[in-house]
This record gives sequence, C-alpha cells and structure tokens, in this order.
Amino acid sequence: MKLFRETISSIQPLNSEYIAIAQSRLDNLTKPKGSLGRLEDFAKRIVAITENTKPGLDKKAVFVFAADHGVVEEGISAYPRDVTREMVYNFLRGGAGINALSRHVGADVFVIDIGVDWDFEGTEGLIIKKVGRGTKNFAKGWAMTTDEAVKCIETGIELSEDKIKRGYKFIAVGDMGIGNTTPSAAVMCAFTGLHPKEVVGHGTGINDEAWNRKVNVVEKALELHNPNSMDAIDVLSKIGGFEIGGIAGAILGASSRRIPVVVDGFVSTAGAMVALRLCPIVKDYIFFSHMSAEGGHGLVLEKLGAEPILDLSMRLGEGTGAVIGMSIIEAGVKAYNEMATFEEAGVSKEQEEK
Amino acid sequence: MKLFRETISSIQPLNSEYIAIAQSRLDNLTKPKGSLGRLEDFAKRIVAITENTKPGLDKKAVFVFAADHGVVEEGISAYPRDVTREMVYNFLRGGAGINALSRHVGADVFVIDIGVDWDFEGTEGLIIKKVGRGTKNFAKGWAMTTDEAVKCIETGIELSEDKIKRGYKFIAVGDMGIGNTTPSAAVMCAFTGLHPKEVVGHGTGINDEAWNRKVNVVEKALELHNPNSMDAIDVLSKIGGFEIGGIAGAILGASSRRIPVVVDGFVSTAGAMVALRLCPIVKDYIFFSHMSAEGGHGLVLEKLGAEPILDLSMRLGEGTGAVIGMSIIEAGVKAYNEMATFEEAGVSKEQEEK
Repeated sequence: MKLFRETISSIQPLNSEYIAIAQSRLDNLTKPKGSLGRLEDFAKRIVAITENTKPGLDKKAVFVFAADHGVVEEGISAYPRDVTREMVYNFLRGGAGINALSRHVGADVFVIDIGVDWDFEGTEGLIIKKVGRGTKNFAKGWAMTTDEAVKCIETGIELSEDKIKRGYKFIAVGDMGIGNTTPSAAVMCAFTGLHPKEVVGHGTGINDEAWNRKVNVVEKALELHNPNSMDAIDVLSKIGGFEIGGIAGAILGASSRRIPVVVDGFVSTAGAMVALRLCPIVKDYIFFSHMSAEGGHGLVLEKLGAEPILDLSMRLGEGTGAVIGMSIIEAGVKAYNEMATFEEAGVSKEQEEK
Repeated sequence: MKLFRETISSIQPLNSEYIAIAQSRLDNLTKPKGSLGRLEDFAKRIVAITENTKPGLDKKAVFVFAADHGVVEEGISAYPRDVTREMVYNFLRGGAGINALSRHVGADVFVIDIGVDWDFEGTEGLIIKKVGRGTKNFAKGWAMTTDEAVKCIETGIELSEDKIKRGYKFIAVGDMGIGNTTPSAAVMCAFTGLHPKEVVGHGTGINDEAWNRKVNVVEKALELHNPNSMDAIDVLSKIGGFEIGGIAGAILGASSRRIPVVVDGFVSTAGAMVALRLCPIVKDYIFFSHMSAEGGHGLVLEKLGAEPILDLSMRLGEGTGAVIGMSIIEAGVKAYNEMATFEEAGVSKEQEEK
C-alpha cells in the first residue's frame, strides 16, 4: 500500500515550458510549420514528459500481463481457458503476434504471469508475479479482494520501476487472458456509465448467442456489485482482472518516473482507466495507440477524450497495437531530433504574408 | 514511347490463388481469425503482388522526385522557388523529414532531379534526369509538351526498374517542388470532376487571399485547357508537373515488376491518378499510405476507393507519410511470416460454435 500511495503522489503534471521549447525547435526545422501533423505533437509531448530537449526512445519494453478469469465459467469466450497458458509459452518462444511486431519495431517483450491458473515455476524467461490463480467468477462474487487489487497494481509499478532502472525509456502495455474482454467491458461500463450493449464486443470471435450471454453477464455483475465509479480499487476488485490491475500499475510506475507509456487496445484501455481514476495526471504520460475493433472501444476512447494514433481494425491485444504506436511516436521524435533547421540547411524560410 | 507502352501492357492483375494461400496461413496463426485487421490484408496483398508465400520487404527505397513549376509566377506558394533547390541539397545531406523518417524505417532515399530550375551537374548523390528546368506556367499555356510528359513517366519507369534490379523489394514515392500542390489539385480536379474549391489546399501555408488566388488559377486553367480526363498524357501535359509524371512512371515500373509501391500524400496521389488512368490494374500494386491534411485529399481518396493506412494530419510530402506506411505494411508481413501456427505452438484452436 505504501508503494501504491507514494507512486501516485509522486506523479507530476507536465511543465509547459518544455512544450514551448519543443515547439520553437519544430518551427525552425526545414518543413512548413506544423506539416508533420501529429508527429510533431508526439515529439512535443515526449520532450515534456522526459524533460529532455533531445529525447531518445531507443530502449523500448512491452509488458504482456497474463492472467486467467473465473468468469469464463459463464461461457463468454470462444477459446478454452488453457489458451492463456499455451500463449504464455508461445510468447516465450517468440511465436506470437507481439513477438513478431516487437522485433519489427525493436522493442523487448516481457511476459508477466500476474495470475494465470498454471504453475510456471522454473519457466525460463517468464516474470512470475502471481497474485492468484485466476480471478473468481465475478458473476457470483468479487473478482478479487481489495488486497489483491492493490497487489496487482503494485506489481505493475514495480515492473516499470525495475525496467526503467535497467535503462528502458519507453514502455508499452499489453495483455493476454482468455475471457479478459469481459471484465474489461465491465470496468469500462462502470467508469463511463455506458451500457454493456454499447461496450461488449465479440472478443476472440464468439457468436451472437454468446455475445448476448456476455452482455447479460456484464449487466448482471454491475447490478450485483454496484461498483463505485469514483473508486478504482472498488471497481477493479469487484469486476476487474489481475492483468487490468498490472497494466494500471505499469502506467502509474512509468508516469512517476517520467517515462512515456503506450496503451494497447481494449483490455489495456480498461487498465488505463483504473490508472486515470487513481491519478488523472497520468493522461499526460499516456499515448493511446490504436482504436480497437473490439466492441465499443472507440466510444470509450471518445469518452476519455483520447485520440488514438492508428485505426487498423486490430483486436488481438498482447500489446500488438501499442508497439506499432511506439514506432510512430519514435518517428516523430526522430524527425524532431534529426532534421536540420532552416539555418543549418541554408533553406529560405516562408515569405512574409502581405 | 516504346518503354512506356511495353511497361503498361506488361502489368498483370493479381492471382487470387495467392490471396487464398495467404488467408489460409493467416487463419492458422496463433491469434483469433482476422484479429490483426488490416495488417492481415496488407500481408495477403504483398503475397499476391510478389507471388511469394514468404515475401521479404527488407530492401526499401523511397524516391523523392524534385521539380519546379512555372505556375509559381501566379503567387500560389508561401515559399520562394529557390526552396526546391535548397531542399534537394538538404535531402542529399540527410537533414530533411524524409531522411529522418527513412532512417527510422530502414529505407534508402533516392533524390531525382526530374525538372528543377537549377544546374546540379556534379552534385554527388543526386540522380539527375532533368526533363526540363521547371514546367511552363499552365495559367498561360501547357505545362509541358506531350513528349516531355511521356519522358517524365519513362524516367520514373527506368528508375524503378534500375532499383528493382539492384534488389529493392519495396518502393515508396514522394515529391519536392515549390508550387506543386497547385498542378496536383488541377490534375485531381481534371480526373474526378471535383471543383477546385473542394480540392485546393493551403500548401506550405498560404493565407486565405493566396488560397483564393490558387483556386482561381486552377479553375481558369481547367477552362483554358479543357484537359481530357480519359487521357492521362493530355492531363499531365496541360496542367501537370514533372514530378507528378515521374511518380506515375515509378508506380508503373514497380507494378510491371510485381513490386509493391507505397504512395505518399497529395502530390503523389496526383501521380498515382495518372498511373491509374494509364493502367487501372496498378491499383492492385498501390498502397495509399496516409490521408494528407492538404486540401481535399480525403475526398479524392474516397473517389478512388482508396483506404489510407494512416491519418496523422501530415502534409509535408517528400514521401514522409509513405515511409511510415511502408513500416506498417512490413509489420503485417512480418507477423504473417514469423508467427507460429496453432500446431507449431501447441495452442488450442477456438471451440466449435454450437
């Protein structure tokens, strides 16, 4: 609880002086003002986050938080629960989507067992930080205790801190957990007041019958638990998931160390909402990488005032959208760092408007 | 004229068998079906374009075609004409936006003087293929002769062929030329029937008075020349630009060798429209990288039925949007090539829907 409290209280808003410094450099680079569009916004924000006028993002980490979910008992997923564990092994062997895309953008993948229902002891390359062997079925009771909720957030904080100490400059968050779009939808509904029908999606590919069941499960759980939308721990404990808490923690940990953090899609956004409720300032440190094709993700991003970088109809999770987002943000930072100014290049500036 | 004719007649539509082969592999990779969204579409199309079930895009080239424009006499640009030449030197020294972004994605930049009003003889690193020292002012007469129009297209074809012979697997097209959004808008209007007010933008940053002047110039030129929208050479000669022709040629050349080609923003789209009119099949080989913030680019893409990959409010040109697009397409191909299948990874497939 101490780490949790201290981390949140240490997060600082951005200093707008850095935005001004970056803007001034951008306006002197050999291009029409503003012509790199959002790439310029990314560069400005990275300068302000890092308080570094020549920031480097080259050492990149993506965290894949894996966990199981008791609510799969309700028949809300197209895949068997075993797939969470099987995919963890796939990540460790480098065969999953996140591995291929991370290699492409030069990010290192860290896989965290934050609550898979499997004993991974001795598995090389896995970060074992199990908070429990899957959540409880929140259709029947709380998903986790409040202690567990705090613990999974602290796990995320510690992970960010550890990797930042090892030189990582840029963090992305992703997820793996069969069934996890159900708690994510529930968390999003709790925070936004949107109806489950507006938010629940088809996850890994359920049919309409299962979708109706999933909507019903979320609706009933919200009635049963009546989570307090002002209390992130209440929401996370009652209807959340361990990976959702881990993601929230990683975001808080990165923000407290002035490290930019890229959020993946549906599940990661639920984690980001937990972090945002605990500390609204983290919005300054977050980049929402993409609009997921899952359920009402776009509607939720709109409620958050978040403008995603990409819209590629992706809905895989794992951090796959986030690492592509990282590469685009890095593109903006490299343009900012590496382009010549008008003076350096001997290029004429625009003519005075008459 | 022979190269021009032979290239166009050699372009073949895609073989849908390759799409089916790629789809089958995609559906066996360890992810829910279709969950990589448009990345999967990119991979399928690359497989079909290259007729290679394990395609590699690692050797990437971006062509920056530079040219001047007689129409700048009409006061339609915020920057002096000298900037075309100055930016060519900036490209060669590696200080422009396209240089920084190309380094980021691993693409090699080739700068082509296809019609700059400057004698670059002896300039190291520049590909000098001058068709003329800038176009004529199309507010008063034809921008170029039909011979010049064919010549700039053939220059683009030869360039693609040369680089493909040297092992390049993936080509992007970009532009540099003060004033060139004016002929581009004129070309787009001629092909689509859109009104200049719907298409003309603020280019490098003109004020509203200059914008009105620019709209007027395009409108009057369309009246004066009445370009035949069914005849790409007529359009290009009367109201085009040398870089627009070069871009069209590079697209044709790449398509004829089954090499995918990524189109940048406003000016490159005008070039793509010339290529598409000459040979509609090139649509199979083209990826439209981004929706430019310039004028009616979005409207024109809609008319073309093109779905851009990115929308980052960029409007720099040079190929800057195209190289970022390249990296995203490559991400899709790497996921396709490198991900494990369910069988390889020992991951359970989805449960049968009941």
